[in-house]
Amino acid sequence: MARFTLDRRLANDSMLISRLGLCELRLINDARWPWLILVPQRAGIVEFFDLTPLDQTMLTFETSLVAEALKKAANCDKINLGALGNVVEQFHYHLVARNKGDANWPGPVWGHGKAIPWNEPARDILIENLLEAF
Amino acid sequence: MARFTLDRRLANDSMLISRLGLCELRLINDARWPWLILVPQRAGIVEFFDLTPLDQTMLTFETSLVAEALKKAANCDKINLGALGNVVEQFHYHLVARNKGDANWPGPVWGHGKAIPWNEPARDILIENLLEAF
Repeated sequence: MARFTLDRRLANDSMLISRLGLCELRLINDARWPWLILVPQRAGIVEFFDLTPLDQTMLTFETSLVAEALKKAANCDKINLGALGNVVEQFHYHLVARNKGDANWPGPVWGHGKAIPWNEPARDILIENLLEAF
Repeated sequence: MARFTLDRRLANDSMLISRLGLCELRLINDARWPWLILVPQRAGIVEFFDLTPLDQTMLTFETSLVAEALKKAANCDKINLGALGNVVEQFHYHLVARNKGDANWPGPVWGHGKAIPWNEPARDILIENLLEAF
């Protein structure tokens, strides 16, 4: 079985928060929205249905856990979930905290404008709040 | 327990293909992309984590089943999955067949331009292919 290696673009665009049972939980470096990704630590996964049924269930469990924590930590109006993979092939699942009036609301975050990197203190507060909310 | 009623906007924008164990499977009336939604037949669901753990697992099973069938039926490059709910509050899960060079590729479909209604024969062929692919 091939070994999981994180896609280079995902690695560049995000930082590791934690390793869960199945996924790497990472923060996208874009302060416009609190934006996390879950990346199953499995090689060769492109589509959701490439995961085994057990891994699908694990991903679902981790998605639910992280989405609920993110909603609390960011105190936001809505969580957006998505798996597109049109640019980066390696399967990754987006969880984005959205607020009425935020950048591109009520449209999607993907492909909108240019990322604004986090400043470290704000980023660290978000991550701390998130870990507390678990 | 409140009774499930389909949101009026979802009803207007899509047609019923089938009722699965948990969800209504519906086709969005936009011929630019073969675009399905799964709507859990439960009242008062807004976020993914509002579903019970069993319903989350059911939705995951139905997502995987439908996504794989859609990829075969549409013979497409990639399936895009998403749950946004920034406009329509009732929880619904998108499954979109994407191809390199399609409308707004590699960007997302949500909020892009204006829907082009299906013509009936093309729509019926897609639905037939989809049901066969299950």
